[in-house]
Amino acid sequence: MKTIVLILAYDGTPFCGWQRQAGQKSIQGCLEAVLTRMHGGHFTEVRGASRTDAGVHAEWQVAAFDTDRDYSPERWQQAINAQTPPEIYVRSAREAPLGYHPRFAKKGKCYRYWICEGRFLPPFLLNKAMLSRPLDVTRMQKAAAYLIGEHDFSSFRAIDCQAKTPIRTLTRVDIKRHALPYAYPVFPNEESGLIQIEVEGTAFLKQMVRIIVGTLVEFGLGREPSEMQKILEAQNRSFAGETATACGLTLIRSLE
Amino acid sequence: MKTIVLILAYDGTPFCGWQRQAGQKSIQGCLEAVLTRMHGGHFTEVRGASRTDAGVHAEWQVAAFDTDRDYSPERWQQAINAQTPPEIYVRSAREAPLGYHPRFAKKGKCYRYWICEGRFLPPFLLNKAMLSRPLDVTRMQKAAAYLIGEHDFSSFRAIDCQAKTPIRTLTRVDIKRHALPYAYPVFPNEESGLIQIEVEGTAFLKQMVRIIVGTLVEFGLGREPSEMQKILEAQNRSFAGETATACGLTLIRSLE
Repeated sequence: MKTIVLILAYDGTPFCGWQRQAGQKSIQGCLEAVLTRMHGGHFTEVRGASRTDAGVHAEWQVAAFDTDRDYSPERWQQAINAQTPPEIYVRSAREAPLGYHPRFAKKGKCYRYWICEGRFLPPFLLNKAMLSRPLDVTRMQKAAAYLIGEHDFSSFRAIDCQAKTPIRTLTRVDIKRHALPYAYPVFPNEESGLIQIEVEGTAFLKQMVRIIVGTLVEFGLGREPSEMQKILEAQNRSFAGETATACGLTLIRSLE
Repeated sequence: MKTIVLILAYDGTPFCGWQRQAGQKSIQGCLEAVLTRMHGGHFTEVRGASRTDAGVHAEWQVAAFDTDRDYSPERWQQAINAQTPPEIYVRSAREAPLGYHPRFAKKGKCYRYWICEGRFLPPFLLNKAMLSRPLDVTRMQKAAAYLIGEHDFSSFRAIDCQAKTPIRTLTRVDIKRHALPYAYPVFPNEESGLIQIEVEGTAFLKQMVRIIVGTLVEFGLGREPSEMQKILEAQNRSFAGETATACGLTLIRSLE
């Protein structure tokens, strides 16, 4: 027996999320179906580093499975790529110590969120960004600074979040505006573009990044940055903003 | 009556092409359905600059229609964007002289084609690129140089092309390799990336760009660049390469 680690990218649009769910198409389920077939029908579980939600994308998800087959990592990569839906892509494969679980090995995660300032999404951003009125990036950056470090993030967790403790550490929240590849005159006379938010931390609560983004949008629309401190201190979900739409979110790194 | 000109972008994936076809979903048909509804059921024809094939995308298509409604161009833009499928995007609208037809007004067109060197497409390139083994860009550039200028492009037109003359003028064929946004180790030990081919000319024959790309790929795989001259001189479709897949192609500019 040995353990194979896969580095995955996927477009989350057609999936119910990472996690296997009866009667639905999940990323974990698609991988397990292929691997179970490759093991002559013997169920082969795939362990993931992060359970991404429905519609959330990944550029760098880590997954692992155990096998008694003596294939090289490259052969696993090719075989899985040939059999999974085109939205799932094995970037690389390698061997790891037997029983390796990427969830327990991981040292942190980094997410990216796209916000398009405009009334309609350009076609190349379909299912990849949320729409917003033009935002004040400087205000968002000032508000985000309050989130860096170790805090009780109770205000930024889904109501049904099962985590034992709401204490988490954010190491980085970077916000910048890119020009759209060509000018979309969606808001004449107003600066508009594509806002990229990157959030890095050691671990995250359920929907934490999406709630942080939804809250940052409120600051981008004019709230006083210092109010972010009050939202944190409230330790109450109702003080934060809406949960931003899933399709704008991409897991860009699971740090092992 | 007045004429409104629309600048459009679209993802061609779900469409049978620009041109209206009975029982199928076309870009022209979607626009006409919206505009006809907005004119109380009076059929409103949309005239396009370029008839893109099924699966071909556009970043800058020009279209025009005549109307007796006194709406501002901005109102047309918003109204059409609100009612067409999300894959169609009106970038801007303006008034033009009554009866303006973008096909006759156009001074040239520019296309871009993406080729991904690898065995599988990364998810963000799904329906946006063709796959290829690694290509020799220098050889492709040398071969492409034979195509610049005015030539008989009979070898590079679809068998059923209806154009009266095969004489066309290419003003530019630029080929370059971009690094993929992050390393996809699809061909270990081989240089690989995303090849961008831009082709500009005054006018094009049916499937001309896709046949040029399919032929350039053969040179990228090792043919002698000077053989491009023989393909041109043959004036025979069977001397050129395969027609490259539609999904790699984007109309990036219709020059008025």
